[in-house]
Amino acid sequence: MAGQSFEALFGAIVADIDADMRAARAAQTPVAPILWEVIDYQFGWDLDDERAARRVGGKKIRPLLMALVAQAVCGRYQHVLPAATALEFIHNFTLIHDDVMDKSEERRHRPTVWTRWGAYQAINAGDGLYALGNLAVTRLEALGTPPARIVGVLRSLAQACLWTAEGQILDMDFETRQQVSTADYVTMVANKSATLIEAAATCGALLSTDDLAIVDAYARFGRSLGIAFQIRDDYLGVWGDEAVTGKSATSDIREKKKSYPVLVAFEQANDDDRAALGRIYAQETLSEADVEAVLAILERVGAAAQTDHIAGEYYDAALTHLERTGIRGAAQDLIRQYAAFLVQRAY
Amino acid sequence: MAGQSFEALFGAIVADIDADMRAARAAQTPVAPILWEVIDYQFGWDLDDERAARRVGGKKIRPLLMALVAQAVCGRYQHVLPAATALEFIHNFTLIHDDVMDKSEERRHRPTVWTRWGAYQAINAGDGLYALGNLAVTRLEALGTPPARIVGVLRSLAQACLWTAEGQILDMDFETRQQVSTADYVTMVANKSATLIEAAATCGALLSTDDLAIVDAYARFGRSLGIAFQIRDDYLGVWGDEAVTGKSATSDIREKKKSYPVLVAFEQANDDDRAALGRIYAQETLSEADVEAVLAILERVGAAAQTDHIAGEYYDAALTHLERTGIRGAAQDLIRQYAAFLVQRAY
Repeated sequence: MAGQSFEALFGAIVADIDADMRAARAAQTPVAPILWEVIDYQFGWDLDDERAARRVGGKKIRPLLMALVAQAVCGRYQHVLPAATALEFIHNFTLIHDDVMDKSEERRHRPTVWTRWGAYQAINAGDGLYALGNLAVTRLEALGTPPARIVGVLRSLAQACLWTAEGQILDMDFETRQQVSTADYVTMVANKSATLIEAAATCGALLSTDDLAIVDAYARFGRSLGIAFQIRDDYLGVWGDEAVTGKSATSDIREKKKSYPVLVAFEQANDDDRAALGRIYAQETLSEADVEAVLAILERVGAAAQTDHIAGEYYDAALTHLERTGIRGAAQDLIRQYAAFLVQRAY
Repeated sequence: MAGQSFEALFGAIVADIDADMRAARAAQTPVAPILWEVIDYQFGWDLDDERAARRVGGKKIRPLLMALVAQAVCGRYQHVLPAATALEFIHNFTLIHDDVMDKSEERRHRPTVWTRWGAYQAINAGDGLYALGNLAVTRLEALGTPPARIVGVLRSLAQACLWTAEGQILDMDFETRQQVSTADYVTMVANKSATLIEAAATCGALLSTDDLAIVDAYARFGRSLGIAFQIRDDYLGVWGDEAVTGKSATSDIREKKKSYPVLVAFEQANDDDRAALGRIYAQETLSEADVEAVLAILERVGAAAQTDHIAGEYYDAALTHLERTGIRGAAQDLIRQYAAFLVQRAY
């Protein structure tokens, strides 16, 4: 990578994706202005300042992966843009609804949609955005995409959405459950977080080749990478460098998130420590002393090394699947750089 | 019609639709059991008693219309069943979310999903059901449907969903707005209520012919019929026969719904009556005397006749579009009978 920033490597593609998203939005004739206000807000299109808009618009890591895979498979990515747009709309529909359910008040440096417009408008806007995502898929037709491939994109995105909803249900269930194993947790993450990344890689490939073995290898790469990404996120939520992650270290502990490191502790701590964890997590809020106590228990079971290890295993699996695609060259190397950025989270 | 019941005319098709919906559900491997519990509950599949299950499952008027149009255009309907299933899943996803936003506690003689599982699970289950609807569309492929037609179905359903979300936003906006014209109201209804009925007719036609003029005429038929259906529903919500509609007469007045007759009164009442309406509708709940006062004002402006008239106009327009399809025969006559049932609500 040697000094090449995320922006330098991928900024031009992300700009193309943003332009296609704006075009898909502009193709609609608004009926209810509030919906379009919310959509413009969610993607930073209400901001005149270009830098601020990019900050709010996010890194677009899912549609970017779709474009990178297409480029590696067939040398270009313009033909996948409507599907990339669809995926980013759908990802944001899930975020808008998740923020309601998780009561999250801030996203990408701004108040969340429900905080600003209320929960009911957030439900509606999410529904509308999912519909807009489905409409975006049909824009592939105007690019001359064979209709059978468009149906493939529809299937991949719909299956990913179904799994994402199931993952969210499992996640909510975990909050109230006494016992959650690390294995249960990986199943939840594989559905809630990894399936849209899997869909990104799948669609990029299936819009660029009819070779199902290649499509399958990219799909598995995406799923493993998505799991590694989330578990790495869990690591950073406890031991991350605030300057890099933008959220305070130990924030996940303070918020009582049952993330991977904490579940390792619940599974492996000795009886005294497990009892202490039970008492601490049964409280409404945690004191500084509680946070310190949890960190000490995580230290005693070696949760940091175990979390790092499992994320590394999924990352390695992702790279093996990438190798199995049989695709070589500079564009494929770019996917490796993207994967490293994603899991190291140093961008 | 002469004594032929809705069940006698359409029961066999509705049973085929229900069977296809169950097959689409069975094709999935559940990840989060709660989602599938909710889906089974919503469609009455949790009930052993067949009669009770049919009652909870509903009349399936949208997928039924799709099947009837297909039969009129090409003599059969089995080839549209996956799209009919998708439409019914999507319609129910909107119901599950609408019930959250409208705080409706009962639907089809049972507690609504949010009443039983909470609002968050209802949001998730709705999202999952929309995704399942999209997946159901792809099941058309296994029937040998040309992929270009599948993309047409996707477009029709996605556009309808987008408009439905926009209509719901307008409807929520009306609740807090001082002035809503009958014209605004028809725009809302045309989006929130009519678009999924329009999609039903559109998909039935486009899966059965490549003649775009026929598809267009059925689409317009569906939209006009959907508007007539909703305004007729508004009529019955004030002056309906309780024994037929299953809800008490004047229930819409008691619930302060700004339905078509009430908006006619707001538009056309004299100054004294309009001031009285303003006072009455500003209250949290209405007394018996308030309900009587509203009914008297509706009487003075002739709201019943006007509501009946506008519903009749849309119904007539629907029949004119149906004529314009150029399709003749017994199957087309069956669509006329269906339309009469729908608007007279005597089934």
